[in-house]
Amino acid sequence: MEQKLSIVCFSGDFDKAVAAFTLATGGAATGRPVTMFFTFWGLNLVKKRSGRTWIGKGLLARFFNFLMGGPGNVPLSRLNFGGVSPRLMRGMMKKNNVATLEDLIEAAKALNVNLVACEMSMNILGITLDDLLPEIKEVIGVSTFLDYSRDAQIIFI
Amino acid sequence: MEQKLSIVCFSGDFDKAVAAFTLATGGAATGRPVTMFFTFWGLNLVKKRSGRTWIGKGLLARFFNFLMGGPGNVPLSRLNFGGVSPRLMRGMMKKNNVATLEDLIEAAKALNVNLVACEMSMNILGITLDDLLPEIKEVIGVSTFLDYSRDAQIIFI
Amino acid sequence: MEQKLSIVCFSGDFDKAVAAFTLATGGAATGRPVTMFFTFWGLNLVKKRSGRTWIGKGLLARFFNFLMGGPGNVPLSRLNFGGVSPRLMRGMMKKNNVATLEDLIEAAKALNVNLVACEMSMNILGITLDDLLPEIKEVIGVSTFLDYSRDAQIIFI
Repeated sequence: MEQKLSIVCFSGDFDKAVAAFTLATGGAATGRPVTMFFTFWGLNLVKKRSGRTWIGKGLLARFFNFLMGGPGNVPLSRLNFGGVSPRLMRGMMKKNNVATLEDLIEAAKALNVNLVACEMSMNILGITLDDLLPEIKEVIGVSTFLDYSRDAQIIFI
Repeated sequence: MEQKLSIVCFSGDFDKAVAAFTLATGGAATGRPVTMFFTFWGLNLVKKRSGRTWIGKGLLARFFNFLMGGPGNVPLSRLNFGGVSPRLMRGMMKKNNVATLEDLIEAAKALNVNLVACEMSMNILGITLDDLLPEIKEVIGVSTFLDYSRDAQIIFI
Repeated sequence: MEQKLSIVCFSGDFDKAVAAFTLATGGAATGRPVTMFFTFWGLNLVKKRSGRTWIGKGLLARFFNFLMGGPGNVPLSRLNFGGVSPRLMRGMMKKNNVATLEDLIEAAKALNVNLVACEMSMNILGITLDDLLPEIKEVIGVSTFLDYSRDAQIIFI
């Protein structure tokens, strides 16, 4: 069997997300079983609502989710300049025919990448599967993730 | 034999530390041999003194250790707001019965996670095993760490 | 055969670069086949020109490359203080006879670490192999990288 690849998407940064999806789709395109496990800041990438929204159970959780934002305002890990640079990078990517984040999520789904979300961080943030994109199939704990990742290469991004 | 798991704890951020210990204890609870290798900023998580202290050999090292701080003032990797958010997250974790960092360190020890520290970064920072929590059993070089990690899944956090 | 080690050098931070090269040379010194894949910010570490320069094709790319800088001004991932801390850390490293980044790149080359650069991020940034250090042998896509990394431990830094 082809070697499995498991990616822990912890960071919600735009540049790191592009790296994560590029590795995932690159792997899946060559026949590897790939799992992407979205946790903590990484959940921002797959929230249903694009911008800042008051989702979550409890005042603190709602406030924290608002600050974290959604796929529409993910920052760069460096040189963010209040959101100017991610837009600039998107432009540079489009100009060079590099897939955007939205394309990459769609490609991941089309290539049967197993997109799952982390139970514990969703509990902390007070959000449910309903708050996430329909591409996310399952909410699992870390033990289940490690179980899925038996004999896989694990990459933490 | 169960597949080994090795985690390089490079980052001293609170959120990443929770991720590292959750993966470590989740793996150890299901019978995997787990090693956590604390290096550079990650050493802050396992310093004996909780707050900012002037430890280390030499003025520069002491100044740098003071700035780095200890387990009592580890920041979030984003939205830190001068230390407000880690406290907020601790509160959200407690409310949802998620283990705190202190619980996780204790659980790691109880589950026989092999907690070791990086020789080179301790030399750079001028600190010794005496400056670290008693849970840290050994100070090892990177070659020894790679040796311990033969056939392991390696995760860099 | 010795277990392979593949390191994705995504981050251009000084401290993380030291960690990446230390793992790479530590692995190579004990006979492992090691590949370092420089991508995105990590390309800053292996640019030919040390400081900020206007390289790249297109105005946006040139502006972005200028902001990113080169090996001479890589920041720390924390406590950077406008570039003071990396210099301070270099000093602490030198004092303790720890190899500097320049030494580590040279050692990696001497130990036959396979130093390669990421095609997609070079396209985004509009730079070519000519803009990189001669130690970088090849520009490859992510599929080729995953192919080189078959059965390897993959570390994303």
